[in-house]
Amino acid sequence: MPVTIWGATGYAGAELLRIIARHPRFEAVGAVSRSKAGTAVGAAHPHLRHVYNGMDFISPDDAVSLSPAVAFLALPHRASAQIAARLLEAGQKVVDLSADFRLKSAEEYKKWYGVEHPAPQYLAEAAYGLPELHRAEIAQARLVSGVGCNAAATITALLPVARAGAIEEARVECRVGSSESGAVADEGSAHSVRSRALRVVTPFVHRHAAEVTQELSLPLSSFTLGVTAVELVRGIQCLAHVTLKERLREADLWKLYRSAWNDEPFVSFTPAKPTHFRIPDPRFVLGSNRVLTGFMLAEDGRRMIAASAIDNLMKGAAGSAVQCANLMTGLPEICGLDMMPLYPA
Amino acid sequence: MPVTIWGATGYAGAELLRIIARHPRFEAVGAVSRSKAGTAVGAAHPHLRHVYNGMDFISPDDAVSLSPAVAFLALPHRASAQIAARLLEAGQKVVDLSADFRLKSAEEYKKWYGVEHPAPQYLAEAAYGLPELHRAEIAQARLVSGVGCNAAATITALLPVARAGAIEEARVECRVGSSESGAVADEGSAHSVRSRALRVVTPFVHRHAAEVTQELSLPLSSFTLGVTAVELVRGIQCLAHVTLKERLREADLWKLYRSAWNDEPFVSFTPAKPTHFRIPDPRFVLGSNRVLTGFMLAEDGRRMIAASAIDNLMKGAAGSAVQCANLMTGLPEICGLDMMPLYPA
Amino acid sequence: MPVTIWGATGYAGAELLRIIARHPRFEAVGAVSRSKAGTAVGAAHPHLRHVYNGMDFISPDDAVSLSPAVAFLALPHRASAQIAARLLEAGQKVVDLSADFRLKSAEEYKKWYGVEHPAPQYLAEAAYGLPELHRAEIAQARLVSGVGCNAAATITALLPVARAGAIEEARVECRVGSSESGAVADEGSAHSVRSRALRVVTPFVHRHAAEVTQELSLPLSSFTLGVTAVELVRGIQCLAHVTLKERLREADLWKLYRSAWNDEPFVSFTPAKPTHFRIPDPRFVLGSNRVLTGFMLAEDGRRMIAASAIDNLMKGAAGSAVQCANLMTGLPEICGLDMMPLYPA
Amino acid sequence: MPVTIWGATGYAGAELLRIIARHPRFEAVGAVSRSKAGTAVGAAHPHLRHVYNGMDFISPDDAVSLSPAVAFLALPHRASAQIAARLLEAGQKVVDLSADFRLKSAEEYKKWYGVEHPAPQYLAEAAYGLPELHRAEIAQARLVSGVGCNAAATITALLPVARAGAIEEARVECRVGSSESGAVADEGSAHSVRSRALRVVTPFVHRHAAEVTQELSLPLSSFTLGVTAVELVRGIQCLAHVTLKERLREADLWKLYRSAWNDEPFVSFTPAKPTHFRIPDPRFVLGSNRVLTGFMLAEDGRRMIAASAIDNLMKGAAGSAVQCANLMTGLPEICGLDMMPLYPA
Repeated sequence: MPVTIWGATGYAGAELLRIIARHPRFEAVGAVSRSKAGTAVGAAHPHLRHVYNGMDFISPDDAVSLSPAVAFLALPHRASAQIAARLLEAGQKVVDLSADFRLKSAEEYKKWYGVEHPAPQYLAEAAYGLPELHRAEIAQARLVSGVGCNAAATITALLPVARAGAIEEARVECRVGSSESGAVADEGSAHSVRSRALRVVTPFVHRHAAEVTQELSLPLSSFTLGVTAVELVRGIQCLAHVTLKERLREADLWKLYRSAWNDEPFVSFTPAKPTHFRIPDPRFVLGSNRVLTGFMLAEDGRRMIAASAIDNLMKGAAGSAVQCANLMTGLPEICGLDMMPLYPA
Repeated sequence: MPVTIWGATGYAGAELLRIIARHPRFEAVGAVSRSKAGTAVGAAHPHLRHVYNGMDFISPDDAVSLSPAVAFLALPHRASAQIAARLLEAGQKVVDLSADFRLKSAEEYKKWYGVEHPAPQYLAEAAYGLPELHRAEIAQARLVSGVGCNAAATITALLPVARAGAIEEARVECRVGSSESGAVADEGSAHSVRSRALRVVTPFVHRHAAEVTQELSLPLSSFTLGVTAVELVRGIQCLAHVTLKERLREADLWKLYRSAWNDEPFVSFTPAKPTHFRIPDPRFVLGSNRVLTGFMLAEDGRRMIAASAIDNLMKGAAGSAVQCANLMTGLPEICGLDMMPLYPA
Repeated sequence: MPVTIWGATGYAGAELLRIIARHPRFEAVGAVSRSKAGTAVGAAHPHLRHVYNGMDFISPDDAVSLSPAVAFLALPHRASAQIAARLLEAGQKVVDLSADFRLKSAEEYKKWYGVEHPAPQYLAEAAYGLPELHRAEIAQARLVSGVGCNAAATITALLPVARAGAIEEARVECRVGSSESGAVADEGSAHSVRSRALRVVTPFVHRHAAEVTQELSLPLSSFTLGVTAVELVRGIQCLAHVTLKERLREADLWKLYRSAWNDEPFVSFTPAKPTHFRIPDPRFVLGSNRVLTGFMLAEDGRRMIAASAIDNLMKGAAGSAVQCANLMTGLPEICGLDMMPLYPA
Repeated sequence: MPVTIWGATGYAGAELLRIIARHPRFEAVGAVSRSKAGTAVGAAHPHLRHVYNGMDFISPDDAVSLSPAVAFLALPHRASAQIAARLLEAGQKVVDLSADFRLKSAEEYKKWYGVEHPAPQYLAEAAYGLPELHRAEIAQARLVSGVGCNAAATITALLPVARAGAIEEARVECRVGSSESGAVADEGSAHSVRSRALRVVTPFVHRHAAEVTQELSLPLSSFTLGVTAVELVRGIQCLAHVTLKERLREADLWKLYRSAWNDEPFVSFTPAKPTHFRIPDPRFVLGSNRVLTGFMLAEDGRRMIAASAIDNLMKGAAGSAVQCANLMTGLPEICGLDMMPLYPA
């Protein structure tokens, strides 16, 4: 099935091209870039040159006229909603990796992103693109949003206890790599500045908190989401310091974890031993669409650490997007997404 | 004044040698190593060769017979207390960087370190080696303990609010470099395993918590101290997620910080702006004895992040030890310790 | 087809397990480990747990009695030849990743590895496991050696000009990651020692030079192979400073490169532009079996840099081994080996 | 003595401020920045805030009217010569860290830097700022150029054999950190692009080759200077693959090294053992003004590796500049420059 990728010069776009190059059913018929239209895909992405040899980026205008099974949008927010509206009108199915269709309310969107929503008429029908939460809805949707990478990590870390209504308070820390902020360099992203830095980008409330609290039905007053940039290119480790509403036993938690994850193709939880692997490290999911989750309960049964590790460009962006597109086109959910984690790297 | 350094082949020992090489009043008359006695200091520590050219490590027996102004012990716990006892009996002043004389109670020592204390008769007189807390006591002591590196970071992060009795609960995270676990390689410390790892070494209660709760008079039931090994060789960033007993205003906190730190020669707190520097990064203290502290208060006035950054081998070990030795010998506290942080590196 | 993997706890063994987990025709029926027999594969290799869930390492004795299509040996040299001999006698086909069957002469083996060859009777029939050089021979062999990772990089860097007999002298530098020395930590491989180090492990003649000079028919007197350990876990960049026998034009070199690589499924050469990508970076082949090669010619037409980049655990070890096994069992050469490079990571 | 620092917001400027903060005789009376005049030095350089608290950057116009003992220029080339001319006319002594006064010939300058020299009338009197080569001349000069960082590394690596006229050919590789290209981010310097990259910035002839060949009287036809950006922020390792004119013995080389370096306060050469430290690593000079040199001779006595390691911001820029300023003002050469290398870091 033909697919198009908008914003194909950025990291999420490149990762979509990487996945689709080995996807058994999807074929990239258009890598769209306004600024690089007419130049070779392989010149921008040397790691993809052998598979996209001879292929050039195409312009938005050329892309609109194609008839893909799915169009992936890896564009800046606001611009993305405008293109999405245009493609939906043209009858295309859309997976929009930007933040534009994640929040259900145009007011919330304005509050967190500071601008009016460009296409609020589509908010109601857009499905939030985490199949672990909205599998059936995604399969029926013509518009699916991508996930915020920190949101994907946080939601999967908290889901088992959040579903049980057990969270009194959660203080979440995401430790993130530099690919999260894209391929463009600014003063804070230069290697000499960013290397080995522990930069607390957001101490309290990263805007992905809006998605997390929406999807887990948590009140924002008992939730913080801090983000620290660490010496990593790819990967997110989420550590949620949870206070439970009432004392739980470890066995209760195992039950919640099994119930949440046992049937999920991409999510695992770490076993009780060895203990130094219980809090998952993103190194063990690198390059894959997998989520590792895990927890530790303090002796008092009230304080808990709920954790997860993902590859931000895969499960936190392009991987989840393809997972959704598989569902939208009736393919098996894992189609083209079973690449193994790369370790050590 | 002559000083001796026991355990001079390890990282803390090497850092003492580095400091003392440029200390205007101390001179290293003995670099003690059981295993390397008779071999060149410069062969073990190539970065020190030009200043210790011709100097060999000496044996413990040779070192005992010297008469230093201060003996620094950078030895494993338990072994350290035994040597300390021997040196105290010989009339030497001792700064013991191990954990042996940090806790006031032999029972606590046994609980946290799993062994009987080898010299409990000295616990009462030992001063905890953080001048910011015990300046006068250290100046009078003949036995001063060093500080746990994570404890030094946590205590300085929490001190202003702890002194005010304002802490209801604290969940502390220390992000630490690989030099913390010393120069010896084991399965978890190999480069291929440790590189870019986010290994949660202790999710809840690192044993330096014993020092922190003792020194800040915090109940252990409302305190956790987690440690994550990150991609760093040197440095600790401490992030304390504090819940305050009652609502505070930002102005209240500035007052507490000024009161705690304005007269301290090695401690600064970060200004209100620029905000991305408020939570301090250990890169800005690298190689120095400085402590950077900072805080952020959530809108509710109850949730706070109190933070600090230190160089674990300096303020977290050798730097604090020399600071104490300066006090013990009547020298200005900052003598030989005013090296500038190295940035970018 | 069933395959067995000996030495399955090390990095090359784990990489074989990773490849075979997604290989459409091979199935790992035995992950062999003397020390860990009876324990879970997933406990040793958390990144593989979801695919080898429930599988334990087996003992050598149990593995000998299996009837695999191919046995992969990722064992230390000397031990490897002994097991290989035993398996060949039992009628198994063997790919031996150790150095034991790379050199054609038992004398050379003794010279470079310092010990007598344990099974010299098999040297004559062993094929050197680089299909780019010995495709037909490998397809017929029952014993194929793996490649030295630095040798694989160097041979592919030099092949186009070496085949043309154009090399007067070559001074080769390989910059290598820490996974090259395996999963075991020693004094030189601890993170605090190895991090950001530029350690010239071998200034002149790494022992992989024996393979390179054998395979390219170069005299050792005009060849050096230096190895520098750099801040990398996975990957080798080979930079060969070549002096050509006679002046060549750039067009001559393009012709040699096209002739050498145009039909090879895993080898590419970098185009003339952009120039900053001409000398290939191992980041662009990470996790894949690909080889990137490239060259630069000085104005005098005599001095040349010939370069390559590989993933040492893939094309430099497990990837080449599976490529050979595919040939030995009549499968398409690229079977199970078309994973895409992971970038950025 | 008062000094001024022009270009005080960049890395070389910050490093000058760092050194001068602890220099016993120099005092920074002006940190000059056109763009940041009037803002706090400590806001731009958090690691310097405690020593330059209350100090603001000043404008060029304000700086010209000061009467410093020395003015340091850490400005882009071309702009630097223009300022230098203005300051010389005003009677100030100048150390210009840019490339403007390194080459003796305005033609050479135009060839390598692509622009007309803005103040050729000063070329004749400018001293090349490496005291190891031009100590007496620098002490008399009113205008001293800084050194190219790669040139400083290469010159010190080659000096002992170059002085002996023993070099037939040299192929030099410098492996460099990201601070070399300054604090400004561009497409190639973003962390996600630069992290762990092995980017061969210049395969053959970096423009610092002009300085090297001038200072060592080497013909450019037998000299190449390649530069590879590696995963490092600070530091240069220079590896020169030298072919000697005639066979030398190891003892000959030791003699040349002793003769070249025994009286130099900042240069050491590595001893014969341990061999893995013979080729120096920049980690062992980090943060200091030291140079480590070393060599290895192949068995044939003709092929040699001559090597060096420096901190590019110290001996490769600000450290050498202060060393020159010490000489120009009659101070001891090492004044304020005896900081110890920081290891491990």
